[in-house]
Amino acid sequence: MSEPKQLHLTAFMRPVSLHTGAWRYPGSYPDANFNLKHITSFIQKLEAAKFDAFFMADHLAVLNMPVEALKRSHTVTSFEPFTLLSALSQVTDKIGLAATASTTYDEPYHIARRFASLDHLSDGRAAWNIVTTGNPESAKNFGLDEHVEHSERYKRAREFYDVVTGLWDSFADDAFIRDRESGVYFDPEKLHVLNHKGDELKVKGPLNIARPVQGWPVIVQAGQSEPGRQLAAETAEVVFCSPRDLDAAKALYADIKGRTKAAGRDPNHLKILPAALIVIGDTVEDAKNKRLKLDTFVHYDSAIASLSIALGSDATGFDPDKPLPADIPETNSSKTSRLGVIQLAEKDKLTVRQLAQRLGGYSGLAFVGTPETVAEELEKWLAEDAADGFTVTFPFLPQGLDDVAERLIPELQRRGIFRKDYEGTTLREHLGLPRPKNQFFG
Amino acid sequence: MSEPKQLHLTAFMRPVSLHTGAWRYPGSYPDANFNLKHITSFIQKLEAAKFDAFFMADHLAVLNMPVEALKRSHTVTSFEPFTLLSALSQVTDKIGLAATASTTYDEPYHIARRFASLDHLSDGRAAWNIVTTGNPESAKNFGLDEHVEHSERYKRAREFYDVVTGLWDSFADDAFIRDRESGVYFDPEKLHVLNHKGDELKVKGPLNIARPVQGWPVIVQAGQSEPGRQLAAETAEVVFCSPRDLDAAKALYADIKGRTKAAGRDPNHLKILPAALIVIGDTVEDAKNKRLKLDTFVHYDSAIASLSIALGSDATGFDPDKPLPADIPETNSSKTSRLGVIQLAEKDKLTVRQLAQRLGGYSGLAFVGTPETVAEELEKWLAEDAADGFTVTFPFLPQGLDDVAERLIPELQRRGIFRKDYEGTTLREHLGLPRPKNQFFG
Ligand SMILES: Cc1cc2nc3c(=O)[nH]c(=O)nc-3n(C[C@H](O)[C@H](O)[C@H](O)COP(=O)(O)O)c2cc1C
Ligand SMILES: Cc1cc2nc3c(=O)[nH]c(=O)nc-3n(C[C@H](O)[C@H](O)[C@H](O)COP(=O)(O)O)c2cc1C
Repeated sequence: MSEPKQLHLTAFMRPVSLHTGAWRYPGSYPDANFNLKHITSFIQKLEAAKFDAFFMADHLAVLNMPVEALKRSHTVTSFEPFTLLSALSQVTDKIGLAATASTTYDEPYHIARRFASLDHLSDGRAAWNIVTTGNPESAKNFGLDEHVEHSERYKRAREFYDVVTGLWDSFADDAFIRDRESGVYFDPEKLHVLNHKGDELKVKGPLNIARPVQGWPVIVQAGQSEPGRQLAAETAEVVFCSPRDLDAAKALYADIKGRTKAAGRDPNHLKILPAALIVIGDTVEDAKNKRLKLDTFVHYDSAIASLSIALGSDATGFDPDKPLPADIPETNSSKTSRLGVIQLAEKDKLTVRQLAQRLGGYSGLAFVGTPETVAEELEKWLAEDAADGFTVTFPFLPQGLDDVAERLIPELQRRGIFRKDYEGTTLREHLGLPRPKNQFFG
Repeated sequence: MSEPKQLHLTAFMRPVSLHTGAWRYPGSYPDANFNLKHITSFIQKLEAAKFDAFFMADHLAVLNMPVEALKRSHTVTSFEPFTLLSALSQVTDKIGLAATASTTYDEPYHIARRFASLDHLSDGRAAWNIVTTGNPESAKNFGLDEHVEHSERYKRAREFYDVVTGLWDSFADDAFIRDRESGVYFDPEKLHVLNHKGDELKVKGPLNIARPVQGWPVIVQAGQSEPGRQLAAETAEVVFCSPRDLDAAKALYADIKGRTKAAGRDPNHLKILPAALIVIGDTVEDAKNKRLKLDTFVHYDSAIASLSIALGSDATGFDPDKPLPADIPETNSSKTSRLGVIQLAEKDKLTVRQLAQRLGGYSGLAFVGTPETVAEELEKWLAEDAADGFTVTFPFLPQGLDDVAERLIPELQRRGIFRKDYEGTTLREHLGLPRPKNQFFG
């Protein structure tokens, strides 16, 4: 019998948690945004649990919310990803380090350099989450009044990728001979000047940095629009996505793997990792209660605003302790969103307050149960080609992370679908991805 | 009697050394460019010796040299400064971390974020070496054909500084109350939106990061042109400069301190630290011989090209083992440079080969002698108001650094002009600089 397909797990982090109420949860570290000791302990636990990689969400602006909601959110500020991950590279040995970097509001020479440097500093553990930057507030921090148009952003992203990977290949892997005797530090035949002149970018090169340990840092892509998927198919080695449920995930998986094949690539060299909140309890009920309790920490003012936006109707007049009224009008701006909300309220039997707090907290895909029931679900997703693993989010820290590391991971290992130890040293090796050849020096 | 004026010492580094021949010196680490273990050992030694800060030179391109010279130079590639210094923040506790960042080829939102993040990660040890970027090759890596014009670069630099410091002040020092009970994470009255609209830059803000530990990271400036000095007077807290000798240093010192006073600032809050190569030997002769030996590792091809450029005349026909010919014509492009070279050859009694290798290696200010003679000279510069300390360069690593740390530093301590231990924890405290008030929340 051949080995069962293996899960890949990436931790999708905010220092306090992605859930907006988590900083108020008992035992949480509300100051973790700028307290590196806490983040260090998180990543060390993730490494002990053999996660593939650690990934920190990132934005180029304070999120655009009314200040009444913003003032309640711990996601307003945190470390910048390159500085943070470089620091963390020194307190870990094996776990991958994925940083978000924008192709819209940065320059390819800078991005190529920083990832190459992080890859050298970490002995081959860097990954680049290519984003075109969704948040329109970012534009205003970079000299613009308005966000660059969507298709334009993706056009630049595609070319940006070519430039960055071209710069990484500036030196052959064996360019640096450092021959003391003859006084030759590198072989000039093994230096390539890119001289890129495209529609969007003009970059001469060469990069002033040796080829990364991994050849290229691992390429991650997280956009889900049509051009986002296409970019993934052509360039990505890992896809972060956020399907609602198993069926949506299967459809997305088939679509992206199909496009990858059509682009002439091996679909096994692209791993699809849906984002999922994981809440572990002693019983399924216990886990559900933890989640409900967590949601209660989302302030009602922010919660109800989130519900109003999702429904496309003012929800402030609803009775917070009753189910959702039946007669919510359909508006043009929010058809699918409204329907999703109504279905969620029915499925989880939520009051208006609970529903609002769910939406204001974290309303994406979630696995809530015992180590056994959650492992069962993850295994099912893996077996049914809905995922190659997950981009795991923790409900609250440190306990929610400890529950996954100490209770779920051993159950996944017992089932033979997750490593008991790292087999290689680089992130590419953890993910089972080949090291790319240098395009100029075969 | 009051305490004598104290020296401030910053290490001005390239991983292998700034001297282009150093990688061939016996005992050197030619692979240090991408071998973090070596750089870690260097910075830990500098911290043990109580240096104020560690500074890594940086460029946004491969230096523009004919490939025949370039192939012999270890300065062709190295780590990117933010990633490197962030990593080093985790293997040190007290020493300052100074990074070069360009105001010409980067964005203030990115720069403000990265320095703020480094300052948080290092508990208040970051410094920003503001440069307008001298190397014209850089332009070609950022979409341009030609370098941005000098005065234009400085105009943008001045405004860039205002934007970055304004972004650092986005949140009051006490903005983050994190009150679990009321669910208020920060006080919105203590958030300032910059809304900068100037001639060169438009940046809305706020920064998505808490105010740096030091209020603002320490501002370093290294340009020496007229607008460079003026920028220093208005903004800098540390000036890196490269005067030729004591008299030039005194004149520069008086000029910059005078301008600082004229700009309405306290001249004591700007520290002038000339760059100096320090070579320590058992006798003065021994130190001089070490330096001569080091110079011999500069390949003659590169060396003679450097001499030709400095003289403004082709030097390839000169007898390498004779003194410089007397009849070198004066050309328009190199009057001062030619004269300086002729004087150097006479003063140090150098053959053509030695002179060429000096110029191809490191030809700036140097202190070469025993711990006592060098300490004597540094003390004289300090007493005569030529410097507030030095930006120290080591001839070769690790030995040249060990000689300074283990032999020169104790001698400076014995004379009472250098600290025996750090008194504070932040770089500002090491340098005796005040923590700036938040301009929006006094
Ligand atoms: C799991 C996941 C993580 C993401 N993380 C980030 C992030 O850190 N920063 C960011 O700007 N966008 C992030 N995104 C958003 C996408 O990168 C993308 O910018 C957005 O979806 C808009 O692209 P699209 O129009 O192609 O969907 C993330 C998306 C997903 C699914
Ligand atoms: C000690 C010292 C260190 C410097 N380090 C850098 C550096 O790392 N990167 C850089 O681009 N320029 C560096 N410079 C150059 C200056 O920052 C400046 O760009 C150059 O002198 C041109 O400015 P100017 O025309 O005002 O002199 C350094 C200068 C000195 C004196």
